[in-house]
Amino acid sequence: MARRKQHIPRHEHIERHFTGGETVRDVVIGMSDGLTVPFALAAGLSGAIGATRVVVIAGLAEIAAGSIAMGLGGYLAARSDAEHYESERAREEREIIQLPDEEEREVAEILKAYGMNDEEVRPVVAAMAKRPKAWIDFMMRFELGLEKPDPRRAVTSASTIAGSYIAGGFIPLAPYILLPQAHTALSLSVTVTLLALGIFGYIKGHYTGARPFRSALQTVLIGGVAAAAAFGLARLFT
Amino acid sequence: MARRKQHIPRHEHIERHFTGGETVRDVVIGMSDGLTVPFALAAGLSGAIGATRVVVIAGLAEIAAGSIAMGLGGYLAARSDAEHYESERAREEREIIQLPDEEEREVAEILKAYGMNDEEVRPVVAAMAKRPKAWIDFMMRFELGLEKPDPRRAVTSASTIAGSYIAGGFIPLAPYILLPQAHTALSLSVTVTLLALGIFGYIKGHYTGARPFRSALQTVLIGGVAAAAAFGLARLFT
Repeated sequence: MARRKQHIPRHEHIERHFTGGETVRDVVIGMSDGLTVPFALAAGLSGAIGATRVVVIAGLAEIAAGSIAMGLGGYLAARSDAEHYESERAREEREIIQLPDEEEREVAEILKAYGMNDEEVRPVVAAMAKRPKAWIDFMMRFELGLEKPDPRRAVTSASTIAGSYIAGGFIPLAPYILLPQAHTALSLSVTVTLLALGIFGYIKGHYTGARPFRSALQTVLIGGVAAAAAFGLARLFT
Repeated sequence: MARRKQHIPRHEHIERHFTGGETVRDVVIGMSDGLTVPFALAAGLSGAIGATRVVVIAGLAEIAAGSIAMGLGGYLAARSDAEHYESERAREEREIIQLPDEEEREVAEILKAYGMNDEEVRPVVAAMAKRPKAWIDFMMRFELGLEKPDPRRAVTSASTIAGSYIAGGFIPLAPYILLPQAHTALSLSVTVTLLALGIFGYIKGHYTGARPFRSALQTVLIGGVAAAAAFGLARLFT
């Protein structure tokens, strides 16, 4: 029996391939993009512009824009999810009171999708009808597939994602901040960032249950392709 | 009874607040970021740089980087999800054969979480034990909360997201492409993009079941705050 399958609350099961929990997931989300996009943008610009000053300004603008779009966007999405959950729950509650027969038929249908027959589902339907609160919970999860969102998570999650984006973004940008020539800074930025993407991908693989080396390779590939495309495109329009 | 609750396959229930389906969802994901980040980056740069040429190059580099990071990243994530699902399914299948008692206890525990007692869950456990394939499906969805991913979706979904990012990104960038002066282009870009964000947010709200005007306001807010921050930061370092 796998250790992680015992006595774990339902909602953790859903994201349990992130064995490190929600904070790790948020760091992964923010840092993935933070390492990749500012890196590719800076690489692209240094293919078209000689001075690092412009690259640094563009990089900082991108880090500000990207972290706010991800953080604030994530926060508002989480709030909408919470409101959506509450409104669906209220609707389910009304339906159980106003249309109990219909809702009982829906419980039966959910289970019949797993090959159970009328006789086998009857005790479950009867059990639900006795406990309206549990019945609503059952419908929310098994009919609608909705998990109760934690409202306190929204702010923490948004800040973690934005902070990780900023932290990730400064790795590719640092060489441009320190060196005056864009093309020497580019070489250093490529070396440092591909290395960072590899290490990050490896750790990410470890936490998400993927094979770490393969995850490292994929993460480096995404960053490399994005940077090469940005570089090629910027060259084309110079 | 709500129309959308009848005879809809399980997996569609989960994302049914996107009433327009998966393509709409992918367009929303790609266009949200595509309208916001290149817009904010271009606005930020035009606060520091007089010529639109650099803004256009940076904008194109960002669109290339962002669309590849989202598209390729999304494709690889979808493939990992599919592999994760298959490996969990294989494990569940093994456990049902090798540790049927343990798995039967898990079925009972899932239902007991909804207030059912030993007597009430017994028929369900017995029904599952008779149908191993349905039993595995039941555990995948109700114990692990995993939906079977559609492998053919990965490529379509990745291209839709990347394409929408590119389409969205050209809206704020167009004024810089057409006009030579960055600060005149900026005014036009801000006007056009905030309008586009409002329309997009309104339509998004319609499809996601949120109140359309509020969704429009939120989308404009995210874009506006990101652009203002990028602009302020770029000014600071000029």
